[in-house]
Amino acid sequence: MIKIELKIIIIASMLKVEVVLSPALLHLFDAKNKNVVVIDILRATSTICTAIHHGALAIKPVNNTDEALILKGSGYLTAAERDGHKLDGFDMGNSPFECMNGAVLNKKIALTTTNGTKCITAATIAGAANVLAGSFLNISAIAQFLIADKRDVVLFCAGWKDSVNLEDSLFAGALAQKISTKEAIECDSTLMVIDLYNRAKANIGQYLEQSSHYKRLSRLHHREDMEYCLKSDEMDIVVGLKSGEMVKLQVN
Amino acid sequence: MIKIELKIIIIASMLKVEVVLSPALLHLFDAKNKNVVVIDILRATSTICTAIHHGALAIKPVNNTDEALILKGSGYLTAAERDGHKLDGFDMGNSPFECMNGAVLNKKIALTTTNGTKCITAATIAGAANVLAGSFLNISAIAQFLIADKRDVVLFCAGWKDSVNLEDSLFAGALAQKISTKEAIECDSTLMVIDLYNRAKANIGQYLEQSSHYKRLSRLHHREDMEYCLKSDEMDIVVGLKSGEMVKLQVN
Repeated sequence: MIKIELKIIIIASMLKVEVVLSPALLHLFDAKNKNVVVIDILRATSTICTAIHHGALAIKPVNNTDEALILKGSGYLTAAERDGHKLDGFDMGNSPFECMNGAVLNKKIALTTTNGTKCITAATIAGAANVLAGSFLNISAIAQFLIADKRDVVLFCAGWKDSVNLEDSLFAGALAQKISTKEAIECDSTLMVIDLYNRAKANIGQYLEQSSHYKRLSRLHHREDMEYCLKSDEMDIVVGLKSGEMVKLQVN
Repeated sequence: MIKIELKIIIIASMLKVEVVLSPALLHLFDAKNKNVVVIDILRATSTICTAIHHGALAIKPVNNTDEALILKGSGYLTAAERDGHKLDGFDMGNSPFECMNGAVLNKKIALTTTNGTKCITAATIAGAANVLAGSFLNISAIAQFLIADKRDVVLFCAGWKDSVNLEDSLFAGALAQKISTKEAIECDSTLMVIDLYNRAKANIGQYLEQSSHYKRLSRLHHREDMEYCLKSDEMDIVVGLKSGEMVKLQVN
């Protein structure tokens, strides 16, 4: 038993981790054949994980509302958010609570959001081996997957319309710290977010009250969503892209 | 006397400060009519401040080596650095120590570097009211200038070939903290770098030993340069752009 634990620590310490703080910086990184974790904590990737956890079969990220509405004809639920608002004419917005109480059980969902869904597409185009949805809700399961898979890791923060944001950076720091050590890291952004996370970890919710998107979502009465999205390890699934749809990955 | 101090604190707390973590993110910010501080701590903007402090009349940032060599015919000293190396055929590289002991007294210098000089040009094109050279060496003088001038501030990190780096981010945090308060800040990047600076401030040199560019410059034997560039308040000048050249600004 002790032997197994030691082995995991050694693998983790060797993992190369880079952090992309904004989609506008993705071109500086080589994501090819790496594990890319797309991070849109408030709320897209947290909602994607929640939907799968509550029985959705798949979430198809689409880049615009037209694509989502076309898929409605094929039986998909449609979900669309822009600037924090649910769009009229769609079944859902971008709130994790819309995925609970059987609402998405055995359903497929076509989802388009302001930031997160575009990044899933960008990571795919960049040639990622796996594109995972990042969320605090299943952070330990994601960490275990990445450590076991051993590939280099790119943590890809969705930000807000290309601007760097606190909540995605914080999550990147939390995950980077779980899967690697500072000594193994050569990327300054990764070092930055690890220190940021350690500054904030005692009370992430309180820390984020100063952030731009937290204030934006508070004005839109999404405070309950945010409190939920900052909970850690509520589920042990890993959600990643298969054939263009986010699904529950089989974890060995 | 007490009254004056109180007034300064009140003005400082109202200053709007944004931080551009990489040149690739500058387009997200409106720098027009703002005070922009270009930050290339290791070493361009530290060297520019040092040269002016040691009697250089002006440093003209140019974007390529050809432009620098043309200015040689007009009596300029030429300084060129790429990837940390001084280029052959130029009078100087990018080291602050080359500016000491009378070497630049009453001289003008045409300077081109990997990152910093390009950012001075970019800030000018973006319509900045003032483009200042950022360095720890005169950080308090810069802070006093910004507080007195009252304009909104953009702290523009040069990074390394568009990648975010630790040393420029740290300086941005140090300066942001001197001129504003967290309550007045709406930019997540600014909040991030302030916390990063507070994490590192006890020993910035030691903190930066983990950074990518520190390691790069160490390999190139520029350790002495780095130790110098991290010293605070060695001079009380403010260096900014006038008619395309970095000169000592008159401070009221």
